[in-house]
Amino acid sequence: MNFPKTVKICEVGPRDGLQNEKKLLSTEQKIELVNGVLASGISSIEIGSFVHPKAIPQMADTEKVMQAIGKRKNVEFRALITNLKGVERAIDAGVDKVKLTVSASKSHNLSNFNCTPEQSVASFDECVKVALEAGLEVSGAISTTFGCPFEGKIPLKQITKLIESFRDIGIKEISLSDTTGVANPRQVYDQLNTLKKHYKDVIFHLHFHNTRGQALANIIAGMQAGVTHFDGSFAGLGGCPYAPGASGNIATEDIVHMLEDMNIDTGINLDALLCIAKKAQEFVGHETDSAILRAGKSSELIPNKPKKQIIL
Amino acid sequence: MNFPKTVKICEVGPRDGLQNEKKLLSTEQKIELVNGVLASGISSIEIGSFVHPKAIPQMADTEKVMQAIGKRKNVEFRALITNLKGVERAIDAGVDKVKLTVSASKSHNLSNFNCTPEQSVASFDECVKVALEAGLEVSGAISTTFGCPFEGKIPLKQITKLIESFRDIGIKEISLSDTTGVANPRQVYDQLNTLKKHYKDVIFHLHFHNTRGQALANIIAGMQAGVTHFDGSFAGLGGCPYAPGASGNIATEDIVHMLEDMNIDTGINLDALLCIAKKAQEFVGHETDSAILRAGKSSELIPNKPKKQIIL
Repeated sequence: MNFPKTVKICEVGPRDGLQNEKKLLSTEQKIELVNGVLASGISSIEIGSFVHPKAIPQMADTEKVMQAIGKRKNVEFRALITNLKGVERAIDAGVDKVKLTVSASKSHNLSNFNCTPEQSVASFDECVKVALEAGLEVSGAISTTFGCPFEGKIPLKQITKLIESFRDIGIKEISLSDTTGVANPRQVYDQLNTLKKHYKDVIFHLHFHNTRGQALANIIAGMQAGVTHFDGSFAGLGGCPYAPGASGNIATEDIVHMLEDMNIDTGINLDALLCIAKKAQEFVGHETDSAILRAGKSSELIPNKPKKQIIL
Repeated sequence: MNFPKTVKICEVGPRDGLQNEKKLLSTEQKIELVNGVLASGISSIEIGSFVHPKAIPQMADTEKVMQAIGKRKNVEFRALITNLKGVERAIDAGVDKVKLTVSASKSHNLSNFNCTPEQSVASFDECVKVALEAGLEVSGAISTTFGCPFEGKIPLKQITKLIESFRDIGIKEISLSDTTGVANPRQVYDQLNTLKKHYKDVIFHLHFHNTRGQALANIIAGMQAGVTHFDGSFAGLGGCPYAPGASGNIATEDIVHMLEDMNIDTGINLDALLCIAKKAQEFVGHETDSAILRAGKSSELIPNKPKKQIIL
């Protein structure tokens, strides 16, 4: 196995993590979390989304959070959008990049946006133009890439069609999301291997939920296929509405812990990250799926001489 | 990445899972669990251990469990032992195989057995002879292979010394245990790659705890190094006394779920396994770390037409 020397992590907790919480965090709490993420050395943050506040009230104050934080040198703030109105709000708020999202599954896209995936992407053309004119970067995201809760596995052809539509409108950074945590390592390796060979000009990001405990294994498989961009969410926040009680996004600290142990550089201070993960847990007020918050780092040794204790 | 066509899983729940429970299960409950494991198609079961009942009272009735189950065609019942007395009890109980265990870490072995690892293995010579004479198979286990809570990382030389000592006394099936869940995928791949090249006559088994959520990723790395034998514990029972509240052994159902999704045959019926995992959870009376018990299988689709619901 060959592993990359460095990996780039994007913190999506402020968006994908918090949008799934019933309890609305205050704008001040969100600002505190984002400042903490910045302090840990993370240089790519999905700070929120610009969708209708009635649809996702948790993200209604993304403008305020972004304006309070302000642009930073060498840090990329991205926001998720689904239409032109979103782009306009993103421009006003001062984010660096917009992420245009579509589902690989027809049923899922219809359920979310009342139109087919093809219609979604067609409507992005104008968004891209407006964003680029305003000096923003653009990226795309394909949700349910590795499976849909209504349709099951998605044929690779459906994914490539969307990738090509994205490329046609000038988007060459594409995030593939395992929205409900159904991806497996062989699938991730095979699909990404194929996609990276076919679309050498595209930078693929991978976004895994840990619903079935397979996210870190999928990240290993992604790295084997040459992917070096992964999303994580502080404290493992985020969820899957179809599997209540299941794990959410893979915890950023769990990814960084594994990579650090593997001597793969992320440029992130794990201890600082753990402080923020703990704070995020406090703010949402419930346990979340973060292995390292529970167990501590593998490098933490028992300092005292062990007592006689049988552990087989 | 190349994956094996088949993988052999050993269910260690009756031993490594239950030995960590404060609540003692009744012999009848244990028998029910083992019968359920057999019904799922698992053909290798670590049914208990023969150590002093004062040290591990949870395993005091291993004889009774084994005798109630009885030998089965094409099923291997193994038991963990640490000395000659254990072998004698194993022979009387009718298990098929004994597993002689030693720690790679001097501090850990001293803490467990009051002697150095070398002294432990030296004392196994007689155990092997007696076991083989009685028609039992023998195997070895090295705990803290990937790190020790007192000493940190263990030099590979310490592991190879123990492997060679095991071979010297005729043991060629060796289980490498990540006792406190500190292994990472690069380490697992590198070490197993080296060990398998050096000791072509040894069959390596891997035993991972999911303390830091990395067990499935480590299994992927193990398979890349050519390992096809892995341990799991129903419902993810088992724990790490140094990380209270952390996950235990990797759940057998989580391994089987991932492998099934990857088209790797285990010969195990996942639904039957999930029933037993649920029962194990009921018997111990608390939540455990089993992703698939919480989330359900990735193949389970939402049967009804989705309602309008934004999931980004």
